[in-house]
Amino acid sequence: MSFVLHPRLAADTLHVGDLPLCRVLRMNDARFAWLILVPQRADIVEAYELPAAEQATLWGEATDMGRALMAHTGGDKLNIAALGNQVPQLHIHVIARKLGDAAWPGPVWGVGTPQPIADTSAEIQRLQNALGLQP
Amino acid sequence: MSFVLHPRLAADTLHVGDLPLCRVLRMNDARFAWLILVPQRADIVEAYELPAAEQATLWGEATDMGRALMAHTGGDKLNIAALGNQVPQLHIHVIARKLGDAAWPGPVWGVGTPQPIADTSAEIQRLQNALGLQP
Repeated sequence: MSFVLHPRLAADTLHVGDLPLCRVLRMNDARFAWLILVPQRADIVEAYELPAAEQATLWGEATDMGRALMAHTGGDKLNIAALGNQVPQLHIHVIARKLGDAAWPGPVWGVGTPQPIADTSAEIQRLQNALGLQP
Repeated sequence: MSFVLHPRLAADTLHVGDLPLCRVLRMNDARFAWLILVPQRADIVEAYELPAAEQATLWGEATDMGRALMAHTGGDKLNIAALGNQVPQLHIHVIARKLGDAAWPGPVWGVGTPQPIADTSAEIQRLQNALGLQP
């Protein structure tokens, strides 16, 4: 089986670029600086189902993207989370939170209504530059 | 500066044991199979503030504890999250979720009222055995 992005993730996000292991997506919600990383492997639900070397790559990519996103957005607190209670395909949320943002200090999931990004191609380009991802 | 556990984490949890990097705590809430891992390092807020080798150890310990907790509890979905919006000391939530649990399918944070564990010493001993932690 080859990797296919879950349709729910595809519908909710913009494609920013690909790292050695993970596809990097931007949640299409202008309220939050919110990436989602999805390891490009078929049929993986839990991080521990990946080979040990890929587990390390997974979390390393999430941490590196988090650091770059915090620098890019001037974030106050990084949130990194693998939940997957609703979409089983393994995906890691990487969110640069701001004091007083629409969910602060609670978690972002399920809060209010997503606000679609107005100029998606400009946002993707900014993120590719900030995260060092090739278009 | 030496490591001191944040008083809020100390108040909300039971001490299960220590790994090479992280202190392993059990959230004192019987509704959820919920560990918290805290790297025993002073003044760390974000995972990327740790040296690269310790970042790998941090996530490796979280993933390993998650796998063991899932096996011990028969969990349906593992949640791993570093949030820290309210308690700045870096800590990783590791939660073995069950279908239909008190927060399912939403995240556990801020849901309802924690239910204190009745027999804390029995619970700690069970977890030490299940997680391979020395008393």
